[in-house]
Amino acid sequence: MKALRLTALLVAFWAAGASAADAPKPEGPPAKDWRDVSPENLVLIETRYGTVAVELAPEFAPRHVERLRNLLHAHFYDGRSFYRVIDGFVAQGGADQDTSATADAPVNPEILKAWPPLTAEFDAALPANARFAPLGNPDLFAPQVGHVDGFPVGRDPKDKRSWIIQCPGVFAFARDNADNTATTEFYIVIGQAPRRLDRNLTAFGRVIDGMQYLQKLNRGDPDVDSGVIADKSQQDPIIRMQLASDMPEGERPHYQVLRTESASFAELKAKRRHPAPEFYHRKPLANLDICGVPVPVRRATP
Amino acid sequence: MKALRLTALLVAFWAAGASAADAPKPEGPPAKDWRDVSPENLVLIETRYGTVAVELAPEFAPRHVERLRNLLHAHFYDGRSFYRVIDGFVAQGGADQDTSATADAPVNPEILKAWPPLTAEFDAALPANARFAPLGNPDLFAPQVGHVDGFPVGRDPKDKRSWIIQCPGVFAFARDNADNTATTEFYIVIGQAPRRLDRNLTAFGRVIDGMQYLQKLNRGDPDVDSGVIADKSQQDPIIRMQLASDMPEGERPHYQVLRTESASFAELKAKRRHPAPEFYHRKPLANLDICGVPVPVRRATP
Repeated sequence: MKALRLTALLVAFWAAGASAADAPKPEGPPAKDWRDVSPENLVLIETRYGTVAVELAPEFAPRHVERLRNLLHAHFYDGRSFYRVIDGFVAQGGADQDTSATADAPVNPEILKAWPPLTAEFDAALPANARFAPLGNPDLFAPQVGHVDGFPVGRDPKDKRSWIIQCPGVFAFARDNADNTATTEFYIVIGQAPRRLDRNLTAFGRVIDGMQYLQKLNRGDPDVDSGVIADKSQQDPIIRMQLASDMPEGERPHYQVLRTESASFAELKAKRRHPAPEFYHRKPLANLDICGVPVPVRRATP
Repeated sequence: MKALRLTALLVAFWAAGASAADAPKPEGPPAKDWRDVSPENLVLIETRYGTVAVELAPEFAPRHVERLRNLLHAHFYDGRSFYRVIDGFVAQGGADQDTSATADAPVNPEILKAWPPLTAEFDAALPANARFAPLGNPDLFAPQVGHVDGFPVGRDPKDKRSWIIQCPGVFAFARDNADNTATTEFYIVIGQAPRRLDRNLTAFGRVIDGMQYLQKLNRGDPDVDSGVIADKSQQDPIIRMQLASDMPEGERPHYQVLRTESASFAELKAKRRHPAPEFYHRKPLANLDICGVPVPVRRATP
């Protein structure tokens, strides 16, 4: 008899968050509980290790999503690199350090002219019908936490604002010291969630596949030039970065995300909150960390 | 003037936790606030990407530390592999799946004979003089949290037990369903902290250098055989795994860890709790996550 082991019990739940399965399992959530990812919101980042898929969340930051789509239409990122990668924190990519894209004092003014600074969208007033699914327990950093369409979200009932939480895999734009200074540079969280960044930077997407390829990126030394990799030959290239909707239909990947407002997702959270007693002899406190709850994703055949 | 950017402000604190600096900075903590890592507690894991350094914590799990030292003296891990690697969760290494080392029904009885199952050490009664430095805010999973000698620690004032928290970088032994079944297989947390494992597995070390090399390890598919990498050629080898005290003195690396009971570390925590207002225009809640507070480490010249 095959014994359950450390990871075995966690896998059914963990799996879909970590890599997309090829096909739905017969015993999985019903078809109605899956949502198609729109090709207009699907960004594919090709690295030398594999392709990373990011879903965008336009209702949280419409201006930033529009900017990113325009940058992608213009092939802005193709051939650029992940130039600042700090282990346990973020992978940052784009036009490089000290360009207009991140610096208050631009050394590359033509980029700044083409892509002027954006007004920050650190949080949003979600539409009344947004599908907020509360996590169901307190959080150390936000008054309320839960999911909206698979994105980890914080909410403040006082001012009715919502924001995407800086969990691992979250996609955001970097900025300078002033709020309204983001232009073209992006980062993806690759470490323990840096929650102090919540509502201080504009987050508007999350990795739904290929996180392991980001983890392979060469790191910078955080003690030297804020983690920028000085030797450009050691910077991992962004081979290509494009919107699925800009690809020929036959070449687009198709993803589905489990609806976080569904009974299926509620059941997954309950299982994680009360893990299998055969292995977990000490019952953990019945709390979840909003960043520790993977949302199932699957690769779908069109 | 060089602008502060997304990561710049965090680096001074983040740095030492992410990679060891070559030399002490003149403006850094005073010499008395650094503790030497004993060569008897320093494990070096050589991977094809670089060497990972782990510090052991014998006072939390003396039997497991003794077992690991004996396994290292016997060169048990050399030439074995990281055979189960789940992105966002753990990297597991040793004698492989379905050996006596992890299976209730051993298929490799000679390993089980040589390394019989250990009595679990999920928590410990710390000596009264242990250097517990409270984090200073609540936690979602433990009654009290703080640091002991750099290790992230949970405490229960009711039963006076303490345990190493399963933060990223923590080193522990895997087991089967029953508590007292760990023998030789180890894992290292490489994702968001899986806190449900706290006090359910024996944790007795943490990575103090080279975390980025573990992140490069090839992943398994968590949907297939619990994340075990079926194609052995895709498993990253453990080239060598040894105790510093088993190496010739001239070849041993030397590390120092900032004393977590020192005023220097208290100051670092305060800075992280109240990050620089030039960049953080929205003041985050003054809480820290016990797994999000890097403990400075430096490579020292002997």
